Amino acid sequence: MNETKKIPVLERVMKKNEQIAAEVREQLHEKGIVTFNFMGSPGGGKTTLIEETIKRLQGKKRVAVIEGDLATTIDAERIRHYGVKVLQINTGSMCHLDIRLITQALEKIDLSDIDFLFIENVGNLVCPSSHDLGEDYRIILASVPEGPFKPKKYPVIYKEADAVIITKTDLLEYFPDFKVEILFQHAKEIQPEIKTFVVALKGEKIIIDDWITWIEQAKPKKR
Amino acid sequence: MNETKKIPVLERVMKKNEQIAAEVREQLHEKGIVTFNFMGSPGGGKTTLIEETIKRLQGKKRVAVIEGDLATTIDAERIRHYGVKVLQINTGSMCHLDIRLITQALEKIDLSDIDFLFIENVGNLVCPSSHDLGEDYRIILASVPEGPFKPKKYPVIYKEADAVIITKTDLLEYFPDFKVEILFQHAKEIQPEIKTFVVALKGEKIIIDDWITWIEQAKPKKR
Repeated sequence: MNETKKIPVLERVMKKNEQIAAEVREQLHEKGIVTFNFMGSPGGGKTTLIEETIKRLQGKKRVAVIEGDLATTIDAERIRHYGVKVLQINTGSMCHLDIRLITQALEKIDLSDIDFLFIENVGNLVCPSSHDLGEDYRIILASVPEGPFKPKKYPVIYKEADAVIITKTDLLEYFPDFKVEILFQHAKEIQPEIKTFVVALKGEKIIIDDWITWIEQAKPKKR
Repeated sequence: MNETKKIPVLERVMKKNEQIAAEVREQLHEKGIVTFNFMGSPGGGKTTLIEETIKRLQGKKRVAVIEGDLATTIDAERIRHYGVKVLQINTGSMCHLDIRLITQALEKIDLSDIDFLFIENVGNLVCPSSHDLGEDYRIILASVPEGPFKPKKYPVIYKEADAVIITKTDLLEYFPDFKVEILFQHAKEIQPEIKTFVVALKGEKIIIDDWITWIEQAKPKKR
């Protein structure tokens, strides 16, 4: 059996998915909704960033959240606490969200009722990069304990990113070899247009204002 | 076009790969080699654990290392420093190592010259779980900053694991919500036979002895 001959099957599925994603993006734009796809390693701080962002957008932007995880509703429960619409998708053994799961989730959200849609992808620095979810912006989180070389080691996901956020910077003193500027420089070598932010969301010194200022002003855009 | 009809193609590839993995395992056992597949999130401490383990096995076990990363030879350079044989595999955009990449790497290692083979998989808690690399033991790392819910959120990879190691426990005081025993309990709910270890490899208090005692005594085994 010749396996290579049949690979076009997967290519066709991917192409069809891209078409659906483009249609979803258009549909969301018609409603004036801006969509953000949050990606990063497991435990990199995606849910915490979404929580803290929602808190600061209250009264300014109406937000809905789609939570992607292999299993559990732990993250959805955390977000629900903030009184926003949240939908949990469990992917089972699939390493990323795809547009078919997103369209199913969107059927359950009143789109006339929101300004921003946040999608938290499965914790993974590889698979999510090749799946368009109809988003306007791709946000990559890189947490300090992961070390400074993530853009170099996982270039594919950085190539398509609109912003990189270094999280857990309250831990910088325990990781003296982690240089914020070095990670940003590596990210810019891969994607020169990438926006760069740092956040610290625990401890005494909270840092998040630059990120909030940027996201508040984010407009719908084509990918 | 009916896509579902063609999914058996992938199943056949997987089945063939499993056969190759079984043959590789047998070949390694004939040489008395014990093989360990280290898996975990990006930046979870896999390379550091391998470095510190090699140091402590010097004079007792001859080790070779296969390093899996999408890109760069950063990790291989770190390991090479310890004078062991190390081969870097760059997977490009692939989210895991597979047995075909392993067999290519093994051609470049003198198997009569080693006792232990360490494979560091791509940083990922999903994809590596469904790929047999001919290993005897699957070792999952869970680092403290990732939080205590990784077994619950990524059960598939824990289901097939022989050991879970909580890394970066020097950071426990900064993560008071992280309870070591809770993570172990969740892991055991998924895989009752799983061995459990904690390590701290930075700072003043180094913890690694239990892990070294276990691995020193590890014997070849069937999966």
